[in-house]
Amino acid sequence: MATTENELTAEVIASFNRTTDPRLKEIMQSLVKHIHSFAKEVRLSDEEWMFAIEFLTATGKMCSDVRQEFILLSDTLGLSSLVDLINHAKGDERATEPTILGPFHVQNSPVLKYGDSIIQRTLDIGEPALVRGRVVDVNGKPIAGALLDVWQTDANGLYDIQESTEVSGNLRGIFHSRDDGGYAFQTIRPVPYPIPDDGPVGKMLRLVNRHPWRAAHIHAIVSAPGYRSVTTHIFDEDSKYLDSDTVFGVKGSLIKKFLPQSDGTLLLEYDFVLVQE
Amino acid sequence: MATTENELTAEVIASFNRTTDPRLKEIMQSLVKHIHSFAKEVRLSDEEWMFAIEFLTATGKMCSDVRQEFILLSDTLGLSSLVDLINHAKGDERATEPTILGPFHVQNSPVLKYGDSIIQRTLDIGEPALVRGRVVDVNGKPIAGALLDVWQTDANGLYDIQESTEVSGNLRGIFHSRDDGGYAFQTIRPVPYPIPDDGPVGKMLRLVNRHPWRAAHIHAIVSAPGYRSVTTHIFDEDSKYLDSDTVFGVKGSLIKKFLPQSDGTLLLEYDFVLVQE
Repeated sequence: MATTENELTAEVIASFNRTTDPRLKEIMQSLVKHIHSFAKEVRLSDEEWMFAIEFLTATGKMCSDVRQEFILLSDTLGLSSLVDLINHAKGDERATEPTILGPFHVQNSPVLKYGDSIIQRTLDIGEPALVRGRVVDVNGKPIAGALLDVWQTDANGLYDIQESTEVSGNLRGIFHSRDDGGYAFQTIRPVPYPIPDDGPVGKMLRLVNRHPWRAAHIHAIVSAPGYRSVTTHIFDEDSKYLDSDTVFGVKGSLIKKFLPQSDGTLLLEYDFVLVQE
Repeated sequence: MATTENELTAEVIASFNRTTDPRLKEIMQSLVKHIHSFAKEVRLSDEEWMFAIEFLTATGKMCSDVRQEFILLSDTLGLSSLVDLINHAKGDERATEPTILGPFHVQNSPVLKYGDSIIQRTLDIGEPALVRGRVVDVNGKPIAGALLDVWQTDANGLYDIQESTEVSGNLRGIFHSRDDGGYAFQTIRPVPYPIPDDGPVGKMLRLVNRHPWRAAHIHAIVSAPGYRSVTTHIFDEDSKYLDSDTVFGVKGSLIKKFLPQSDGTLLLEYDFVLVQE
């Protein structure tokens, strides 16, 4: 029966001593220690505690099949990027840097062929662009048959699954690299977009004077047998918000330029570099 | 654009620099620091992060008008007791110690008179008991007209609002102390009960080999004009779980004995001691 704050923390930590799984025990005891340290450091008031309870409850209530508000919370607190960094440190200087997955990846995107377009409907806005490059190993050797899973928003800043009139698979595609490692697809230039901000996380961002915008990017997961797969983005060098991406996903090596071509379209070239397992 | 874990944490903390409310800024920056410290200390994996996202989502989904799963989570992690200790430290050695409110308090309990029973239905189980005492100041001077709001479970271990066939106001009552500070009410002896454990928090307790039980207690909020109100429990000295109350609410000074009387009933005497504001 604790009478001081530190005795209480010790008592709570000890209550997890009989956890059979050593990893679970380690996580729970560290979690208690750090949550208690936070509450003690800021001298959390009753009202602030209740605000937090209500915030977390509203965040849970906002979650649905197509909305993961807790992932948005983790993203905007930098936790998603931190977990990414903990588990997917670049390792080899030459390899493509990873960044966060985000909540908009879906399974079973359309399987397409070299040079195909991932556009499944036309909004008559957006700049046509060709994205191409190679999948190679750290020595520049082509990797044939690598799988590229790419996805991005439409020119209105929405992913297909966010739209009420969803065109399934719009601006998503699965490609396999050619024998020379090459891949290519037609798309439109990605645009900056706000993360969904009509829920508790949006309210939090407004309260702290942060904007909800992400810098323009194309998502990619690139994998090949014998190689470590990489989950990453390609960012548009001319995008706004590269320095204040609201989910802390930007890395310098992932920023590339869309180059104007003589036919009025844009070209972005990017090689994905994988590390052998 | 951070390339190391500590750079990332610093970048996220800095993103809250433009928060207008200095208290909110302090809280958010401390929260980020401690959440990041936790993730870095345990080297949180992608799978563990996703487990946490799903756990928090399920916790939110479990919340309803009559169930607050996030409060149960806070309780079982000792955070509720810690916040209580931070904000309601005893201060005066002679004053009644506070403990947590818990999720089962309701507004507008029946207003009753000295000596009335708070029992509104009879289960034919449970030991009849009289609870009585005085509300006094730290010098033992009676406080007349103090307001006592008391509530407890029935002999089946359930609060009225937890029952499908709810008898509203059963085992709840609001009393005013007499001119001599005296209060008294008829009730049944409280029993240990498990916190609701059919949700994510119950699953967590099972995973860490902790039981869900609380030691037997009667809740009370005691207030009077000119005095600091106290939210507390009276614990039954003969109860199980006094040493392992699952929400860390027990304090030694709050444990009292139900004394057998010649008529076969029990008597518990407790004086509430309030501090002047």
